[in-house]
Amino acid sequence: MNGMACKNPAMVQASDFAFSGLHIPGNTSDAMGFRVTLVSMTQIPGLNTLRISLVRVDYAPWGIVPLHTHPRAIEILTVIEGSLEVGFVTSNPGNRHITKILKKGDVFVFPVGLIHYQRNIGYGNAVAIAALSSQNPGVITIANTVFGSKPDISTDLLAKAFQVDKSAVWQLQAKF
Amino acid sequence: MNGMACKNPAMVQASDFAFSGLHIPGNTSDAMGFRVTLVSMTQIPGLNTLRISLVRVDYAPWGIVPLHTHPRAIEILTVIEGSLEVGFVTSNPGNRHITKILKKGDVFVFPVGLIHYQRNIGYGNAVAIAALSSQNPGVITIANTVFGSKPDISTDLLAKAFQVDKSAVWQLQAKF
Amino acid sequence: MNGMACKNPAMVQASDFAFSGLHIPGNTSDAMGFRVTLVSMTQIPGLNTLRISLVRVDYAPWGIVPLHTHPRAIEILTVIEGSLEVGFVTSNPGNRHITKILKKGDVFVFPVGLIHYQRNIGYGNAVAIAALSSQNPGVITIANTVFGSKPDISTDLLAKAFQVDKSAVWQLQAKF
Amino acid sequence: MNGMACKNPAMVQASDFAFSGLHIPGNTSDAMGFRVTLVSMTQIPGLNTLRISLVRVDYAPWGIVPLHTHPRAIEILTVIEGSLEVGFVTSNPGNRHITKILKKGDVFVFPVGLIHYQRNIGYGNAVAIAALSSQNPGVITIANTVFGSKPDISTDLLAKAFQVDKSAVWQLQAKF
Amino acid sequence: MNGMACKNPAMVQASDFAFSGLHIPGNTSDAMGFRVTLVSMTQIPGLNTLRISLVRVDYAPWGIVPLHTHPRAIEILTVIEGSLEVGFVTSNPGNRHITKILKKGDVFVFPVGLIHYQRNIGYGNAVAIAALSSQNPGVITIANTVFGSKPDISTDLLAKAFQVDKSAVWQLQAKF
Amino acid sequence: MNGMACKNPAMVQASDFAFSGLHIPGNTSDAMGFRVTLVSMTQIPGLNTLRISLVRVDYAPWGIVPLHTHPRAIEILTVIEGSLEVGFVTSNPGNRHITKILKKGDVFVFPVGLIHYQRNIGYGNAVAIAALSSQNPGVITIANTVFGSKPDISTDLLAKAFQVDKSAVWQLQAKF
Repeated sequence: MNGMACKNPAMVQASDFAFSGLHIPGNTSDAMGFRVTLVSMTQIPGLNTLRISLVRVDYAPWGIVPLHTHPRAIEILTVIEGSLEVGFVTSNPGNRHITKILKKGDVFVFPVGLIHYQRNIGYGNAVAIAALSSQNPGVITIANTVFGSKPDISTDLLAKAFQVDKSAVWQLQAKF
Repeated sequence: MNGMACKNPAMVQASDFAFSGLHIPGNTSDAMGFRVTLVSMTQIPGLNTLRISLVRVDYAPWGIVPLHTHPRAIEILTVIEGSLEVGFVTSNPGNRHITKILKKGDVFVFPVGLIHYQRNIGYGNAVAIAALSSQNPGVITIANTVFGSKPDISTDLLAKAFQVDKSAVWQLQAKF
Repeated sequence: MNGMACKNPAMVQASDFAFSGLHIPGNTSDAMGFRVTLVSMTQIPGLNTLRISLVRVDYAPWGIVPLHTHPRAIEILTVIEGSLEVGFVTSNPGNRHITKILKKGDVFVFPVGLIHYQRNIGYGNAVAIAALSSQNPGVITIANTVFGSKPDISTDLLAKAFQVDKSAVWQLQAKF
Repeated sequence: MNGMACKNPAMVQASDFAFSGLHIPGNTSDAMGFRVTLVSMTQIPGLNTLRISLVRVDYAPWGIVPLHTHPRAIEILTVIEGSLEVGFVTSNPGNRHITKILKKGDVFVFPVGLIHYQRNIGYGNAVAIAALSSQNPGVITIANTVFGSKPDISTDLLAKAFQVDKSAVWQLQAKF
Repeated sequence: MNGMACKNPAMVQASDFAFSGLHIPGNTSDAMGFRVTLVSMTQIPGLNTLRISLVRVDYAPWGIVPLHTHPRAIEILTVIEGSLEVGFVTSNPGNRHITKILKKGDVFVFPVGLIHYQRNIGYGNAVAIAALSSQNPGVITIANTVFGSKPDISTDLLAKAFQVDKSAVWQLQAKF
Repeated sequence: MNGMACKNPAMVQASDFAFSGLHIPGNTSDAMGFRVTLVSMTQIPGLNTLRISLVRVDYAPWGIVPLHTHPRAIEILTVIEGSLEVGFVTSNPGNRHITKILKKGDVFVFPVGLIHYQRNIGYGNAVAIAALSSQNPGVITIANTVFGSKPDISTDLLAKAFQVDKSAVWQLQAKF
């Protein structure tokens, strides 16, 4: 699919199928308080048809993974440590907000392409492992995409779309 | 795919494959100044495997189709009348804003799942026809989904995600 | 799918997603009285997975798009100007002829792989825009394929298949 | 895919996966001199996802399977007895006629959706077994579809499409 | 795909997307010393198109998940606790045995349809979480399938296939 | 799919679509008493999307095709000569053994990924033709994969998986 040449089956090695370090906590010291560690397995024979990938997510206390979508994958998330508030919003016209508090051992599914988020609602760190139904799921963070694109989307248009005045848009654009 | 029973092939009629009225202008008097007319063909034999659908979009002067995504379809839009500014933003990490002014007879493609918009930049009405690569493309309008979900997403979380204070979020939530 | 290398996402430009000129009438002065203008967008990143394409069709008065099939696409046609008689024939054993008169603003669907046609039934020009559910739909015009292949299909075999004498086949082969 | 309910896996029997009688010659006494025997396996659990089917074809001396397409399948044909001339025509604009003489033990592939035929070129009977890449391949016989649809396609339109006069079309329509 | 009716989108609830208890150790006291806990989410709208599922696997000291295949899924396994020896064998003609020792935080991929196994090589319990690229991956345990089918496969045939005498086959069949 | 460049459509020849010799008996003098002749058509334009392949299988008297799976294909087998016992075993938990005696002209389907076998139960040779729903179906012979991998799977692990002592495993490993 993605054009990378496949390895000769007679040359594959165990290391082509393996990744180490998913137990190592990620650094969550940024503004949002989260870190995603991607399991990367490149050049595996048949990688082009692998329909799955894996990430570890670390959350600082009250850290959030802000609103985003994966245009090409379902996500199935398991809480390994701590408690998370998770949610997604259904598409038009309902725009129903489906939300749940997850504890250690809870699993939650985010449907393909819907806007979703997670928030650590505890005073300690939280950890989750998420599997995605594509080796190339894509990530679109809403705030960064809308208010931080390069170059900017026109302030007039954003003001109309979000029904605020232009100064409010400038404020948002200054942050991303 | 969607569970609707298919018609017996011996019973299909021409009307199962037809729709009328795509030349009739839609009413564009709402806040955003646009109207989408969906071509609806139900109960066509094989509808479950139809991989295409069609809409007419009318734009009042300076009307916009605000930022949205189609989680399950590519869109290919043709300008029938007037001039449009169109754009989409690529996924993380680039978040590149790809934009273009379209005139009558111009065609533009929006990739699957990416956030995009259109704006009528002329003083008269504008009209476009758009084909989508699914009979069930889905629409997620960003502002309505983020600030107008039912029930609301937590103000704290939105304030953090968009890096504004809670009063700015309340203002946004009041609009949707 | 088709082996063309994809562009680097960081290098794409608006022109990679755009096409101009679909409002320009095609020249319909040939024997059948129609002209197809194909929207061609080459080297778009992700082109290999684009599942849609677009054409403009111009029809002289009484011009026809003769019987043909698209082996890899559904077609959804919208009449922009004039009136068209359209039809397709279902597969064996029914071979039912499904036909309809379309006016401006009417839409019609031709199922994948079925033999279909359009005819301008008015005294002025007609125009349609058709979307197809593949970026490589293929076209097989029946008369040209059967009677105009290079080299010819054996006259004996065609005479038997169409149950006419060989002189009738020669006459047909001479035209294509 | 086709809506039939699947059997409970605990209830399947060997007969659900079996068919008898493919060694029995079909009656080839009709005008074209061929007979297709379809292997029919209904209500197999998972039938909806079976991507293959099988036919036996019998050919009288000089019998033909006239020009036809399968809109949803590739065909791979093996000659069991006798000699066959086979051919297909590539799509527009080339319309190249690819043809070959096959003897016992020869195999030939017909690409999806292309118009093709077979002819027994020997003085004895011929037999072939063909596998198709769909459990619902569809068959469109060109002559019957074009000149024998119910109701007829307009004589005017056919005369223009095949570039003959209307009396020639009437003659063809009378045969199918 | 599997015929279950989808829920009305307006009726879905958070519980349709959630599962609890993946942190609870499974009982590993059987002969092989392992236990699989399946995350089961039934009646989710869109379940039919969900292309992912999740399991927790517990291993007693020296417990094994014996040789098996998943006919419809890739598996991506993460070690949460303990150390595992894992392996799979490539298809004919190579039959290469690809094997690796995994520690906590290590990830390993088993390609679709290949025979594979895991073994706890430590003195304590081990735990893994595995994601599979289908909501209906299927499991075929080799020993049970070959020597424990109901009814038995003929002893003669198994003796020839495994090149042992019939008494050795009887011994194997008695165990499953 | 498999990365081979497609031929230019204008350069294809009939030989690209043809294979000869499927009527020639294969040599069945090995230990199992069978021989598979694969129809190989390389470099056909569109080969990457061909979803079908074909084999001839010859069986010596009492010869077997030992237990194996095709990870990527359904198989549909037709008996051309002789009588065969065929069978497959359903996946866990049922492990039902579905078996049938086939005579000349009988057809049988083996579902994707399930373990299956054939045995010639007559005193003469038997011949079958099998179509598979992929141009790259893969073959995994159970005995060779389990007991003959390179390097060996650990004897301890195999002894536990098959619930026999290590000397029995050594005996099996010595044969493959």
